[in-house]
Amino acid sequence: MPSSFFTLVHSNNQARAGLIKTVHGEIETPIFMPVGTRGSVKTMTQTDLENIGAQIILGNTYHLYLRPGHELVAKMGGLHKFMAWDRPILTDSGGYQVFSLSEINKVSEEGVRFQSHIDGSYHLIGPEKSMEIQKALGSDIVMAFDECPALPASVERLRSSMELTLRWAQRCRLSSLHPHQHLFGIVQGGLHHDLRKECLERLQEMGFAGYALGGLSVGEKNEEMVEFCANFVPTMPASVPRYLMGVGTPLDILQGVKNGIDMFDCVLPTRNARNGQFLTRHGPLNIKNAKFLEDKLPPDPTCDCMVCQRYSRAYIRHLYNVGEYLAGQLITYHNLYFYLSLMRQIRLAILNNTFDDFFVNFYNDYSSNSWMDK
Amino acid sequence: MPSSFFTLVHSNNQARAGLIKTVHGEIETPIFMPVGTRGSVKTMTQTDLENIGAQIILGNTYHLYLRPGHELVAKMGGLHKFMAWDRPILTDSGGYQVFSLSEINKVSEEGVRFQSHIDGSYHLIGPEKSMEIQKALGSDIVMAFDECPALPASVERLRSSMELTLRWAQRCRLSSLHPHQHLFGIVQGGLHHDLRKECLERLQEMGFAGYALGGLSVGEKNEEMVEFCANFVPTMPASVPRYLMGVGTPLDILQGVKNGIDMFDCVLPTRNARNGQFLTRHGPLNIKNAKFLEDKLPPDPTCDCMVCQRYSRAYIRHLYNVGEYLAGQLITYHNLYFYLSLMRQIRLAILNNTFDDFFVNFYNDYSSNSWMDK
Repeated sequence: MPSSFFTLVHSNNQARAGLIKTVHGEIETPIFMPVGTRGSVKTMTQTDLENIGAQIILGNTYHLYLRPGHELVAKMGGLHKFMAWDRPILTDSGGYQVFSLSEINKVSEEGVRFQSHIDGSYHLIGPEKSMEIQKALGSDIVMAFDECPALPASVERLRSSMELTLRWAQRCRLSSLHPHQHLFGIVQGGLHHDLRKECLERLQEMGFAGYALGGLSVGEKNEEMVEFCANFVPTMPASVPRYLMGVGTPLDILQGVKNGIDMFDCVLPTRNARNGQFLTRHGPLNIKNAKFLEDKLPPDPTCDCMVCQRYSRAYIRHLYNVGEYLAGQLITYHNLYFYLSLMRQIRLAILNNTFDDFFVNFYNDYSSNSWMDK
Repeated sequence: MPSSFFTLVHSNNQARAGLIKTVHGEIETPIFMPVGTRGSVKTMTQTDLENIGAQIILGNTYHLYLRPGHELVAKMGGLHKFMAWDRPILTDSGGYQVFSLSEINKVSEEGVRFQSHIDGSYHLIGPEKSMEIQKALGSDIVMAFDECPALPASVERLRSSMELTLRWAQRCRLSSLHPHQHLFGIVQGGLHHDLRKECLERLQEMGFAGYALGGLSVGEKNEEMVEFCANFVPTMPASVPRYLMGVGTPLDILQGVKNGIDMFDCVLPTRNARNGQFLTRHGPLNIKNAKFLEDKLPPDPTCDCMVCQRYSRAYIRHLYNVGEYLAGQLITYHNLYFYLSLMRQIRLAILNNTFDDFFVNFYNDYSSNSWMDK
């Protein structure tokens, strides 16, 4: 299965350019996946997503299970048909959300019992249920149901959590999915290289179409994550995709690619957009800043997106200040365009064996934080 | 001035097809103007507006004066440049909003003193100030500052209000505007034909580029408005545009055109969209309705807009129910497309001398309320 699913096209040191094939189309890696939690990437139409070159989006199992319900989505022909998006979709397992969003949750061997954050109703999601939901959604890439302990955590806590995650992974592996679906295993183990290594090896014995790093960017220091990835990612199997879940800032992504990561997702570009933050090559630009009051320049004068080609900082600042919907729409559009354009540039640099130069130049540009200096 | 500004292209009984020429482009009438209160037609990008064929949009003087302030807009090159919209813009006078939105307001000969609904600060807008603001905004069509009494009102109250409106109209007429701006007078007088007639005649003596009917759709019965218009509109000058302010439903617009109205604006298609209501030829469709839970059909199967071509009722119902931004965006897009498409069909029918048939067919289709019967 993995050989036709993933092709490693080229490596430039640890950085990889690859190709993932799904029945809904190909994905050029490294890739960033916009987050469409409830069947919509917030404020973006599906046409917008196509126009900015989104190759795959992410749907959240926890949210879609609660509303509108996976059975309804299945009746409507699956998530692709339901949301009128015929490119690839990855769904997460719901594991992270049952801990972070639900009112009360209780972990047992069976799974996680939790109260809905919407209406307080009780639910249980375990490995079989997560697979049942993701099968109903019909996503192209399915994530195994895992436990994700908050960091810092004791090594005993991390080990017992990892053991549970492995038993759950096996149950996911034995569950039925559609033939077109590809199941990824999730490596846990905190920042402990040995635990992570053992977890990965035991997952590999079960055999997954790809491997994800879970439980990072959830409380540890950024340097700790970077250092861990630098040591660990190169030890992951080269023949299948490597996915760093929930990460991150442009620099986190650059760093991840440098260490050999192929796939990323994060709410940062969409969530920060709705808080007025443009993300650009030259650092974040906060449109709320009073200095943009009369600024006729585009948000990022070097950007060729629809937003930067048409609108001024002063206008978008006004929209944001008065609470117009269009502010969030325009900033989201730009931020996702920026992320996807960055991924395309990264891939080109890898193919040209110039990724290290690209890394240094981008790192310097981004860290210069130009908009703050003006 | 009026002859080059407005051309009456064709009449079909009282219904008129015309052409308005502005420095920002031509407007084919009858026309509906989407409302962009604070420099944005809510949830629509300017590209969306172009794509659905919006020929002119409306900006609100009261809102833009308070935020971001007309002086800022002027510094940015006027409202067209500020909001990156180079087609025509009409601005209202602020007269209606100072009464309907402000906390406290006091009318004097000078103008209206009011407290901002945003921060409670005190302001005065009178005819000169309204012209100053609209000049700064640089709109193509400028509305005279008027007093708009709520109906029902005594004939004495209506006469004194009309007299004040006429004195204010004269002061507007004497105020300076940009050469590209066209000033419209507003006819008041409630449902009294004689008062309205006198008001119109005295406005005509001052000379305006167009005449609007104000103070309708503000408390009277719909039949009263229709009957008043049927009698009054044909008496308005034929050589300049006739504008029925703040109206209305698709049937109101059809009725207005039948009586000789050329221009309309209303928040109904945009506001109702955000409340989950699709407006269609076959009546309104409330997407919240439980019967659409598993409905794979487009909102309006007979509509060729981007939304009806791609998305299902079930999907948009889900988006609306979970509070996704995209729900309001998609419904707004459809509703404005429907309104503008309706205006194009109306114009074609007038040019073909088939407006009366069009009126009857549309009236029957719309009144059938098909979506409620299913």
